[in-house]
Amino acid sequence: MFIRVLGAGAGGGLPQWNCGCTICAAARQGRIPDLTQSSVAVSAGGKEWVLLNASPDLRVQLQATEVLHPSGIRESPLRAVVVTNGDVDHVAGLLSLREKTAFGLFATSATLDVLAANPVFGVLDPELVTRHRIAMDEAFMPLPGLTVTAYTVPGKVPLYMEGEGFAEGPETRQLGEQTIGLRIESAAGVFHYVPGCADLPDWLCNRLTEADVLFFDGTVWVDDDMLRSGTGKKTGARMGHMAMSGPDGSLARLAYLRGRRVYIHINNTNPVLMPESPERAQLAAAGWELAHDGMEIAL
Amino acid sequence: MFIRVLGAGAGGGLPQWNCGCTICAAARQGRIPDLTQSSVAVSAGGKEWVLLNASPDLRVQLQATEVLHPSGIRESPLRAVVVTNGDVDHVAGLLSLREKTAFGLFATSATLDVLAANPVFGVLDPELVTRHRIAMDEAFMPLPGLTVTAYTVPGKVPLYMEGEGFAEGPETRQLGEQTIGLRIESAAGVFHYVPGCADLPDWLCNRLTEADVLFFDGTVWVDDDMLRSGTGKKTGARMGHMAMSGPDGSLARLAYLRGRRVYIHINNTNPVLMPESPERAQLAAAGWELAHDGMEIAL
Repeated sequence: MFIRVLGAGAGGGLPQWNCGCTICAAARQGRIPDLTQSSVAVSAGGKEWVLLNASPDLRVQLQATEVLHPSGIRESPLRAVVVTNGDVDHVAGLLSLREKTAFGLFATSATLDVLAANPVFGVLDPELVTRHRIAMDEAFMPLPGLTVTAYTVPGKVPLYMEGEGFAEGPETRQLGEQTIGLRIESAAGVFHYVPGCADLPDWLCNRLTEADVLFFDGTVWVDDDMLRSGTGKKTGARMGHMAMSGPDGSLARLAYLRGRRVYIHINNTNPVLMPESPERAQLAAAGWELAHDGMEIAL
Repeated sequence: MFIRVLGAGAGGGLPQWNCGCTICAAARQGRIPDLTQSSVAVSAGGKEWVLLNASPDLRVQLQATEVLHPSGIRESPLRAVVVTNGDVDHVAGLLSLREKTAFGLFATSATLDVLAANPVFGVLDPELVTRHRIAMDEAFMPLPGLTVTAYTVPGKVPLYMEGEGFAEGPETRQLGEQTIGLRIESAAGVFHYVPGCADLPDWLCNRLTEADVLFFDGTVWVDDDMLRSGTGKKTGARMGHMAMSGPDGSLARLAYLRGRRVYIHINNTNPVLMPESPERAQLAAAGWELAHDGMEIAL
């Protein structure tokens, strides 16, 4: 199995268009690499690929990834897209996949309904882009050689679907079909992809035990990263993302894993992005890696 | 007045994700420059900017344009966005302007209604992103020092709004609020921006006479560029774009203009993109320029 990180950043990417925080400034100065928004391509044999999430940066991500260039006059090695939630950073790239090429679009009913409620996604001609409703814990094959199983993880509805009905804000650790993790299996092993996750209860930790490679939600280091960086008041929890650090953070909760562990969907305000930071050292000491654009893993 | 081309390409850009035509191949090989999708920034004094159309490539375009970088911790020199139609290549970039920064969004009722019909654009918090309905031939000031007047040009509804109601396809030379041109005036002169136009009747030619600088629809060289390049059957006319060449083309119809004339919104299949092509020579001999990403014009 080949895993290629197209984008390792959270929504907004690094640098974020309207952000002058120290981390975004470091990226603009070329001191740390830019991150486009989170998306991963997976292949069993390296010829046909399935995309996990379609970020707003998809056009430049495809351009930067030679294995995803067309080999014919109107053609693409991209055969399928699987979407893990309806957030802008995971679906806006679908708009860049217009232009009359066939592929399969796999998402839960909840997410397909969100897309269907937005006529703009009609640029994906239904005669060419087949919508497949995926059910929890029912395996499907978006490509020969790759078996995918979706499972619910704690999360929330997309920001633009929060609506007016939430006096105290939406349920951020909801268990349903709005936020999912993906188990991807080939003859080579098992890869779990969980770019958004609000909590790690025991049953979810148990599920991840088998992973040869795990990509996990690396949005925030502590819940109030944004407050600490002076960029805003929104917490990780409010955004549906759990912290890396702390007694209930993913570093502690997943310390027992033996497979390769990689953080992805890293927000521009997360201090682990600074190579010399104590947070980065702590992450590395715990055996975790940080995804970067163009990262390749072969299983 | 400062005019900065953020992107000179038509929908899909150059190279287009699924296209292996000779022009896209030349771009992938680095023989001709890439083009991101069409968007232009304008400023009266160089400090505050208004964006004309928000392309899907907006995030990388802003990143590539130093004058548009934030000077504060959450801030942007971008004060307003004016949208000329509801096509994906002109509105998808609005999704990249989320993250809680205030700006004014100016569009016709027709286009604002299209956006309102897509909940995903709700990521632009209405408390921060003020929607302004612009009326034909009524001047407004998106920025101090810049007066903008919108006018109807022949065009069609966005692809994803074509719906089922068109047995023969939609009206492609409709005159209404779905496709507009912009007249932008400062103390320095008059700039006309018309990135999509299906026809040049006399009244429209007359309107453009005053332009010190004109940016005009450069999507196709001949109506059947796509057929000739083997990439598809869709004509320029069907897409709502008139040809550059021919007796009714923009080169002939606008030959009398004395201002600076620049083609923008250039499709990946347009042969003028090849520097050695006879079409490019013809365009240059007629006194036209071809926009490119990063092009700067000071009036």
